[in-house]
Amino acid sequence: MNWNTLQQNRAARLQRASAALGNQLDGKSLPAARIADLLHAVLECGDRVCLEGNNQKQADFLGHALAHLNPERVNNLHMLQSVLALPEHLDVFERGVASKLDFSFSGPQAVRVARLASAGKLNIGAIHTYLELFSRYFIDLPPRVCLIAAEAADRHGNLYTGPNTEDTPAIVEATAFKQGIVIVQVNRIVDTVPRVDVPGDWVDFVVQSPRPYYIEPLFTRDPAQISEIQVLMAMMAIKGIYAEYEVQRLNHGIGFDTAAIELLLPTYAESLGLRGKIGKHWALNPHPALIPAIEAGFVQSVHSFGSELGMEDYIHARPDVFAIGPDGTMRSNRAMCQAAGHYACDMFIGSTLQIDLQGNSSTATAGRISGFGGASNMGADARGRRHASPAWLKAGKQAREGRNTIPRGQKLVVQMVETFREHMQPAFVEKLDAWELMEQAKMAIPPVMIYGDDVSHILTEEGIANLLLCRTDEEREQAIRGVAGYTPVGLARDRRMVENLRDRGIIQRAEDLGIDKRMATRDLLAARNMKDLVRASGGLYQPPKRFRNW
Amino acid sequence: MNWNTLQQNRAARLQRASAALGNQLDGKSLPAARIADLLHAVLECGDRVCLEGNNQKQADFLGHALAHLNPERVNNLHMLQSVLALPEHLDVFERGVASKLDFSFSGPQAVRVARLASAGKLNIGAIHTYLELFSRYFIDLPPRVCLIAAEAADRHGNLYTGPNTEDTPAIVEATAFKQGIVIVQVNRIVDTVPRVDVPGDWVDFVVQSPRPYYIEPLFTRDPAQISEIQVLMAMMAIKGIYAEYEVQRLNHGIGFDTAAIELLLPTYAESLGLRGKIGKHWALNPHPALIPAIEAGFVQSVHSFGSELGMEDYIHARPDVFAIGPDGTMRSNRAMCQAAGHYACDMFIGSTLQIDLQGNSSTATAGRISGFGGASNMGADARGRRHASPAWLKAGKQAREGRNTIPRGQKLVVQMVETFREHMQPAFVEKLDAWELMEQAKMAIPPVMIYGDDVSHILTEEGIANLLLCRTDEEREQAIRGVAGYTPVGLARDRRMVENLRDRGIIQRAEDLGIDKRMATRDLLAARNMKDLVRASGGLYQPPKRFRNW
Repeated sequence: MNWNTLQQNRAARLQRASAALGNQLDGKSLPAARIADLLHAVLECGDRVCLEGNNQKQADFLGHALAHLNPERVNNLHMLQSVLALPEHLDVFERGVASKLDFSFSGPQAVRVARLASAGKLNIGAIHTYLELFSRYFIDLPPRVCLIAAEAADRHGNLYTGPNTEDTPAIVEATAFKQGIVIVQVNRIVDTVPRVDVPGDWVDFVVQSPRPYYIEPLFTRDPAQISEIQVLMAMMAIKGIYAEYEVQRLNHGIGFDTAAIELLLPTYAESLGLRGKIGKHWALNPHPALIPAIEAGFVQSVHSFGSELGMEDYIHARPDVFAIGPDGTMRSNRAMCQAAGHYACDMFIGSTLQIDLQGNSSTATAGRISGFGGASNMGADARGRRHASPAWLKAGKQAREGRNTIPRGQKLVVQMVETFREHMQPAFVEKLDAWELMEQAKMAIPPVMIYGDDVSHILTEEGIANLLLCRTDEEREQAIRGVAGYTPVGLARDRRMVENLRDRGIIQRAEDLGIDKRMATRDLLAARNMKDLVRASGGLYQPPKRFRNW
Repeated sequence: MNWNTLQQNRAARLQRASAALGNQLDGKSLPAARIADLLHAVLECGDRVCLEGNNQKQADFLGHALAHLNPERVNNLHMLQSVLALPEHLDVFERGVASKLDFSFSGPQAVRVARLASAGKLNIGAIHTYLELFSRYFIDLPPRVCLIAAEAADRHGNLYTGPNTEDTPAIVEATAFKQGIVIVQVNRIVDTVPRVDVPGDWVDFVVQSPRPYYIEPLFTRDPAQISEIQVLMAMMAIKGIYAEYEVQRLNHGIGFDTAAIELLLPTYAESLGLRGKIGKHWALNPHPALIPAIEAGFVQSVHSFGSELGMEDYIHARPDVFAIGPDGTMRSNRAMCQAAGHYACDMFIGSTLQIDLQGNSSTATAGRISGFGGASNMGADARGRRHASPAWLKAGKQAREGRNTIPRGQKLVVQMVETFREHMQPAFVEKLDAWELMEQAKMAIPPVMIYGDDVSHILTEEGIANLLLCRTDEEREQAIRGVAGYTPVGLARDRRMVENLRDRGIIQRAEDLGIDKRMATRDLLAARNMKDLVRASGGLYQPPKRFRNW
């Protein structure tokens, strides 16, 4: 029996590359113009190919080259990709180069994913949470070839990712040690990299891309767009949840709801005497909206999945807060930060599009196959967790009080929504659109972002429903209806039962929390626009152009 | 405000080291005889220090040096350590150098941990599962100094870990990027390392230790010690669970119970036509007992937490199966493999010491504070998982059938025990010893290894209890009593109810599975002793001396 097929296959690919490129190959590096030759040489039909579509950083030069290969020579690739962000990511399917996809998130391309899937051009393996997808790279989905992006490489192939390390180390490790081929696009080739993020002997080919890799400032929210309803909800979150459970380690989702919380820490939370008591350690990208809280001394540390455009100088000047290399720039790591979000945080709080009567929430809507990125991982109770904290113990106690069950802790998982989203679509529904999407996309089960039994609190402008304290399915349903406002779900509440839940503290209105709604104005935000954020950073934060309106 | 305390503190430590060592410091390397000087210079009282006590590989030279520092100069260290395996690991507390401990597992030292804790010399922060502890290194417990072990280093500090990579990359990354000090003991200093496992610019000091680091062959089980009861249980596991759910991706615990399963794959499972249908992808250390299954073509891939002594040549000759570097040796990675065990596996199966009437299981017993290593992580339902497989869907369906709940999958978590363990101690108890240990060690909640609501099956010599199918607490209790044999818990069963559970397939006896108990002999094992394993490997496996009796 031949136990050496992978190494032999690798050698054959390298030989084909060497034959195709000849003396165009200078050590590991080749001219950008020859990238198609390299890909045609090393790829085989049906290969599992991991393209570094990240949440932010994109191996866009390689992705473009891949999409434009000759589908008669290279086809039926099985793409592994955490994020599908660019048109090229779908072009590979449109053009017949690839036919199968395992992924995590496709936000901007969700409609096209659904269309290609129903046209039979894209066969979806499965949708994963990030860490789950990386995990499979090491078990049953090792990439044969990976196409990644870094800031710089030296002639040995040592890679410098700078602050946007993201998925790179996990992808390369999974590929290189299963005899796969590692191809990287870099912004520049240098004599000595500022630091080594990925060792050179894990890397096979380096190509200097004609343009720097594409990167998206995904986590920037302009405070000018935060509404007073969001201010009110943020006040309830801080007083009713952060303070109530003494939440010190946490993750925030993307969005204006949680940006509002970040901007109330140095004002409202400070006025409640919460500095040093809540929000000390974060698993979070460097959100610009966190700057005022950092400056006010609320934040002790931030470990990041990836970086954020414009935050480079600020991060550099706050090395106590962020994870910094010897070169002075950040090191991020999506795999470890997702693990940290799962196991080292007491709370996940984020937004959603729809919530049903059991508290199941989903951003999946008919005609859009978008995936959930990291939310399903961080928004799940970490049942393997064994270390205690006040927040975790209190949540676990509330969920189990009066039940004949062994005591354990529980994660706080908060879903924060306004009762109506854009176009007056109700956020609360009898049945999730996920059911319809399941039918359309022929999934085995409906794509739920966070399951109801993992959700501890639902927070709307009408109040907080504490699902931990509910003891029956009926109570849970009425607790949800009780914060669902004027949506049909909210209007169909059993008023007596909702009042009873309120008496028991399961539902809390702003007034029950001692919050004066008149205080809920934008004046409470520590920064009211992008310029304020820049000012709060002492001029160190440099927002991307599209966020500058002065 | 000074935002730069960590970098400044790091610089001060490096300067003290340089002053203490003078020209004894050759680049990053220092003579072994000067290790105490280095540690006295860089350590500060109260430091968080991560000592690489791994599951297998031990930074024993550094650990010994640390334990023998002058406690008047260095004291109150806060030790972070995944495993406490060596006497030195407790000596640091005994001698007053350290006072606080956050850890995962202390098997061989569990009694001494309990004694030191109750004597007030060791203050336990918390007990964690591995990935959870690593996660906290990135959030609220970054080490100021880490003391790690590698196979070799070059003069730039590039590290070669060889097959025993284990915790090293996670520890170093967490330390280096928070301006901590990274000190490594290596077996040898070389001109060029065979491959780079950790980049040199993440490493501060290298010391060639007088002896190679200590390493323990933890995962070797001599087939000669497998009993016929274990053969019977393994047959039930294969036919009643592996085949029933088509389990392709899995993790096995340590122990003779699961070693028996591994050794029945090429015999019993083969006779059932299960090759290619079960046990294809493993998150597992290179268990010698897996050799016959690998040779028989059952196993497609193995990704490992760490390596196993004696398996080096065999692994080298089976590069398609293991994760191999360009140097031909394995790369392991405990953090990524634990993530894979959590998210990419359909099943965890392992043993325990005690199970209560709700199915909670624990290896914690009074007077021993041992921790659970990785079991709590891999033996927990991965509620963030979103990709489907037949095993996961079927388990999830069984758990939810007839319930008004949204469909989802579930992990198979199997606890495999004989009803009586050594010294005729019953494995089934009304109340776990964990409750008593909680009182003794002043823990907030009892230390449970795997919670009952995460357990899908309990397997004993009396049969399989499928807890997924139980619909009430009473059914679950009787299902457990129904496989608890002649233990007091088993004898107190409600016979009629147990027969009813058996009629419904919730309890299955060997005969219900069509297993002829007379076949359950040691003849069915693919290897009956260590020599058989060596033979099965074609002479490639070289067991450590203590396992050689020929």
